[in-house]
Amino acid sequence: MAKVAVVMGSKSDLGVVKPAVTVLKSFGAEVEVRVISAHRTPDEAHAFAKSAKENGTEVIICAAGKAAHLGGVIAAYTTLPVIGLPVKTDMMGGLDSLLSIVQMPSGIPVATVGVNGGENAGVLAAQILGIKHPDIAVKLEEYKRKMKEKINADDAAVIEEASQF
Amino acid sequence: MAKVAVVMGSKSDLGVVKPAVTVLKSFGAEVEVRVISAHRTPDEAHAFAKSAKENGTEVIICAAGKAAHLGGVIAAYTTLPVIGLPVKTDMMGGLDSLLSIVQMPSGIPVATVGVNGGENAGVLAAQILGIKHPDIAVKLEEYKRKMKEKINADDAAVIEEASQF
Amino acid sequence: MAKVAVVMGSKSDLGVVKPAVTVLKSFGAEVEVRVISAHRTPDEAHAFAKSAKENGTEVIICAAGKAAHLGGVIAAYTTLPVIGLPVKTDMMGGLDSLLSIVQMPSGIPVATVGVNGGENAGVLAAQILGIKHPDIAVKLEEYKRKMKEKINADDAAVIEEASQF
Amino acid sequence: MAKVAVVMGSKSDLGVVKPAVTVLKSFGAEVEVRVISAHRTPDEAHAFAKSAKENGTEVIICAAGKAAHLGGVIAAYTTLPVIGLPVKTDMMGGLDSLLSIVQMPSGIPVATVGVNGGENAGVLAAQILGIKHPDIAVKLEEYKRKMKEKINADDAAVIEEASQF
Amino acid sequence: MAKVAVVMGSKSDLGVVKPAVTVLKSFGAEVEVRVISAHRTPDEAHAFAKSAKENGTEVIICAAGKAAHLGGVIAAYTTLPVIGLPVKTDMMGGLDSLLSIVQMPSGIPVATVGVNGGENAGVLAAQILGIKHPDIAVKLEEYKRKMKEKINADDAAVIEEASQF
Amino acid sequence: MAKVAVVMGSKSDLGVVKPAVTVLKSFGAEVEVRVISAHRTPDEAHAFAKSAKENGTEVIICAAGKAAHLGGVIAAYTTLPVIGLPVKTDMMGGLDSLLSIVQMPSGIPVATVGVNGGENAGVLAAQILGIKHPDIAVKLEEYKRKMKEKINADDAAVIEEASQF
Amino acid sequence: MAKVAVVMGSKSDLGVVKPAVTVLKSFGAEVEVRVISAHRTPDEAHAFAKSAKENGTEVIICAAGKAAHLGGVIAAYTTLPVIGLPVKTDMMGGLDSLLSIVQMPSGIPVATVGVNGGENAGVLAAQILGIKHPDIAVKLEEYKRKMKEKINADDAAVIEEASQF
Amino acid sequence: MAKVAVVMGSKSDLGVVKPAVTVLKSFGAEVEVRVISAHRTPDEAHAFAKSAKENGTEVIICAAGKAAHLGGVIAAYTTLPVIGLPVKTDMMGGLDSLLSIVQMPSGIPVATVGVNGGENAGVLAAQILGIKHPDIAVKLEEYKRKMKEKINADDAAVIEEASQF
Repeated sequence: MAKVAVVMGSKSDLGVVKPAVTVLKSFGAEVEVRVISAHRTPDEAHAFAKSAKENGTEVIICAAGKAAHLGGVIAAYTTLPVIGLPVKTDMMGGLDSLLSIVQMPSGIPVATVGVNGGENAGVLAAQILGIKHPDIAVKLEEYKRKMKEKINADDAAVIEEASQF
Repeated sequence: MAKVAVVMGSKSDLGVVKPAVTVLKSFGAEVEVRVISAHRTPDEAHAFAKSAKENGTEVIICAAGKAAHLGGVIAAYTTLPVIGLPVKTDMMGGLDSLLSIVQMPSGIPVATVGVNGGENAGVLAAQILGIKHPDIAVKLEEYKRKMKEKINADDAAVIEEASQF
Repeated sequence: MAKVAVVMGSKSDLGVVKPAVTVLKSFGAEVEVRVISAHRTPDEAHAFAKSAKENGTEVIICAAGKAAHLGGVIAAYTTLPVIGLPVKTDMMGGLDSLLSIVQMPSGIPVATVGVNGGENAGVLAAQILGIKHPDIAVKLEEYKRKMKEKINADDAAVIEEASQF
Repeated sequence: MAKVAVVMGSKSDLGVVKPAVTVLKSFGAEVEVRVISAHRTPDEAHAFAKSAKENGTEVIICAAGKAAHLGGVIAAYTTLPVIGLPVKTDMMGGLDSLLSIVQMPSGIPVATVGVNGGENAGVLAAQILGIKHPDIAVKLEEYKRKMKEKINADDAAVIEEASQF
Repeated sequence: MAKVAVVMGSKSDLGVVKPAVTVLKSFGAEVEVRVISAHRTPDEAHAFAKSAKENGTEVIICAAGKAAHLGGVIAAYTTLPVIGLPVKTDMMGGLDSLLSIVQMPSGIPVATVGVNGGENAGVLAAQILGIKHPDIAVKLEEYKRKMKEKINADDAAVIEEASQF
Repeated sequence: MAKVAVVMGSKSDLGVVKPAVTVLKSFGAEVEVRVISAHRTPDEAHAFAKSAKENGTEVIICAAGKAAHLGGVIAAYTTLPVIGLPVKTDMMGGLDSLLSIVQMPSGIPVATVGVNGGENAGVLAAQILGIKHPDIAVKLEEYKRKMKEKINADDAAVIEEASQF
Repeated sequence: MAKVAVVMGSKSDLGVVKPAVTVLKSFGAEVEVRVISAHRTPDEAHAFAKSAKENGTEVIICAAGKAAHLGGVIAAYTTLPVIGLPVKTDMMGGLDSLLSIVQMPSGIPVATVGVNGGENAGVLAAQILGIKHPDIAVKLEEYKRKMKEKINADDAAVIEEASQF
Repeated sequence: MAKVAVVMGSKSDLGVVKPAVTVLKSFGAEVEVRVISAHRTPDEAHAFAKSAKENGTEVIICAAGKAAHLGGVIAAYTTLPVIGLPVKTDMMGGLDSLLSIVQMPSGIPVATVGVNGGENAGVLAAQILGIKHPDIAVKLEEYKRKMKEKINADDAAVIEEASQF
């Protein structure tokens, strides 16, 4: 079964990662959710990263804010794809989190999504899983179709509403 | 065979994407390299994106600069994982490229690497392939080991050199 | 009759585009309002852009936020003037939207107005229409006169009010 | 005949505006090129702006850098569409020029293109002219086609070149 | 009598300029408060600037936000010192206002204070007046002394309060 | 006994420095808390800085916002380590405070912590004291252990909570 | 005689302040040029600031880069107008210098000009002197007239040159 | 003997850290210089950090660029004071490095100096050592005195040189 680990650096990030968990579960993936800090529980971070692959994890999502080192610290210990989810902060809307995650040195990439982009972290994980698990690829097609239907419905509603402006 | 498409928005980006191509070939992946512009050849972009999966492509790398829409335009037409590679510009060192790529709306992620991070785009593609192709996962372990050896050698050299300061 | 299309990437942008619609209608222009997403309904975007001119549209306003690709995607398929309206976000007050829209590559311009500048998008569309439709040019002169009268009235009120400081 | 005025705040901006002039001339437009400073020759700026329309000008391009007020100052005196062309500076790659031009208050838009986007300023002017002058609309279609052919040729060249990587 | 003009681009800036007016009046200066827009009432701006000196004005404070051209437009028409007061906006906390005001081209300076720094605009005007009007210089010394006493009192209060932490 | 001075530029910064005071007191350090302004009470700043060492102070924490000169002004008069604590402002979330503190010229460092990082200023002071005072080093080990236990408990709670998503 | 002091934080800033000195001398002002560091020679800074007024100085220009505290440190000890001249750095083109100077706390303004705006610092000083010294006001009118003639000549030259494009 | 470890994330940072090493050696401190990467040699990083204290190290300087995690990773494993030295990059002059280092989460501070501030990293380390090692405190006083003499000499030279302007 397709398995994703969703790790956050602080319990306060739970609201940001929840959409990642939800969308992945809706695609039928198994999701492990953890609080592991690169700075406060570094041994847990290394143990987790080193054993992730043999535990069946195929993709790891790491959410963190400010000087967000979690993705890089996990990526240092695994060759699994690591997705970085920058959490919004007061510093220019999360630019600190974003730059701390995306600007990784050569050889250790972290696949970064937008600030507070929890759902996108989940969808990206699903797209990665989809190259191996055809059932998830099918679910992604359906998800894409529903988004399209939603926009089409919004389009119809706005045409109506705007005629009154 | 594992297959990656590397698409750039302009021929002038070739130097930035070359390390992605090189590292992927060194891992044994098949790499298709293309110049397709979201704005100048949009029909090619759509045709490419729509047919990528059936052509055997498993990951798509999109390099673009400034208002860098290529990754988003490709991602609109496929459920394959799309890696965005922001090209450096004069605008705050490529912040325009970075934000144009990473800040995707909900539902259509682009897996973003650092500005001019060509090698990392390649390594990330390999990590994604590695969850399906064990031979690439093995190559990644070796790549990681060599990086470590390189740093260890640099460490030894610097200890020597700095003793003269 | 002068005709403008106002397209938004998400229904949530309706509040931002409404002043554009209102001001254009007050100038006597016909306004088509749509929700079309560059990423979620790309086929609608292309169909819309390709047929806009023959449908009598003369200017297109595209409102979008974050990695705001809508203006560029529409501009790729038409030679009509495309006005980009960046929607405010949490990322530095909409700098992501602004840079994603204004920094277009050579050959495919998007005429960008300020962040959340809905009224200005409408006025700019009217100014463009005005070079062809003299009635709209006349309305713009009147609009400019009213702005002036408003400031003059504010000036008088403030002179009075500040005398009490 | 279609007529565009291209105004720069300083003679040193000539290199940035030249592509605007060239592309407009190639489309058959008449182009008036001027050096007028919002701050050093403000009377000339007002005289120019007030008489532009009756002189047959249909679009005005204003190039300026740093605290770039030229577009706003011209727009204050005309209802013609004004295109703002931000010139690159040392301050974050021209962010000062860009924000000084694009963030106009409600009622007085300046249609902004990217930093140093001279060619785009010209193409945007042509797109505006094109809604009135069919010959220019035809030239724009051809221009778009040539861009596409150029990218297609680059694509073919890169496919060849990259096979050697 | 020492005279300062305080001009704002929009009546909504009144709260920001009020501290400038208040502090200047407390120093015994005559203060003229006006709403004049560089873009909506440009003729008033020029008439005001051109006649300011002969009307006895010695310093002009200009408050404006976003693409804040007011200070530059006034400075173009006078050799009196012009103080620019950037008004806070949603764009990076007023960075657009600040850069639009401070980055003036060579020859036409605007003496810029911090974002929303109304009181500082007033104090700076008083410092300028003080080189000519000894009574204002005396008031500034007293103002400085009171600030010092305020901080000393705060210091004593905090020493007390913090002993309970 | 280990002694730290915590100085703030304005009484309004008290909430930001309080965690520094609290954590230092919990480590058994003596803490002197002061309001001293680099600009409003500069003589107090110099007197304080010059006498700090002979008064037994070993580390100085300076909290200030906007053009935050306090740390630099204190550091000019002492060779004790000075910790700079940038206070959040409206300007890009405190980037003004941060750059004003961290970008010190060669020879006069200020040890800067994150924006509003009061607790970190205190912990850093303790780490510095710890190289001399073994009891504080022991307390820091315990503090680190408690952080780890807190994260571990959060981890357990989230594993439980997320199973319901 | 009108007297200005031009102070720089480092001898390396001499090139940036030179245009201030030159323009002021051309206006007939007496100019004192000094190297005084807020951090390395703080006692000199205080002695200088405290005695500036009684030495006949009427305006002080302070040039500094990075965490540029010089203007604020001088302004703390005088009620004379202090002009801040931010020196360009590698950090976003001098944004660190600019924010460190312009964002002064309430009560202690520094009249800030643009980054590397040496000539503008000199002209602003002259404008301030001009409210007291009529001869300098006359020189400023002439300076303004020459700028205008220069732009008019550039305009004529560009009209000629651009006809060849 | 006072001992400092200077660690860099990449051999290419050697030029940036050299001034730290040199100034510390001139103060009589023992300096260990290492290349250890948070991402490429994480085990070495942990081993180093865990054993630093028992090896006699009292302060650790960590230099790194881009997504600069080294300081945080080292700080996770020690209670010694860790100084972060951000290395300049193309991204806004090293803002990525700076934010990645300074914005550490609560409990794990990194004492950050300015971008490329190698000498300041060394001086800060010496100031920390100085609270325990009186000989280093004495050297710091002398270092401060020499800086002052240097500025005084520059002042004299500039007074001479500027009289020729």
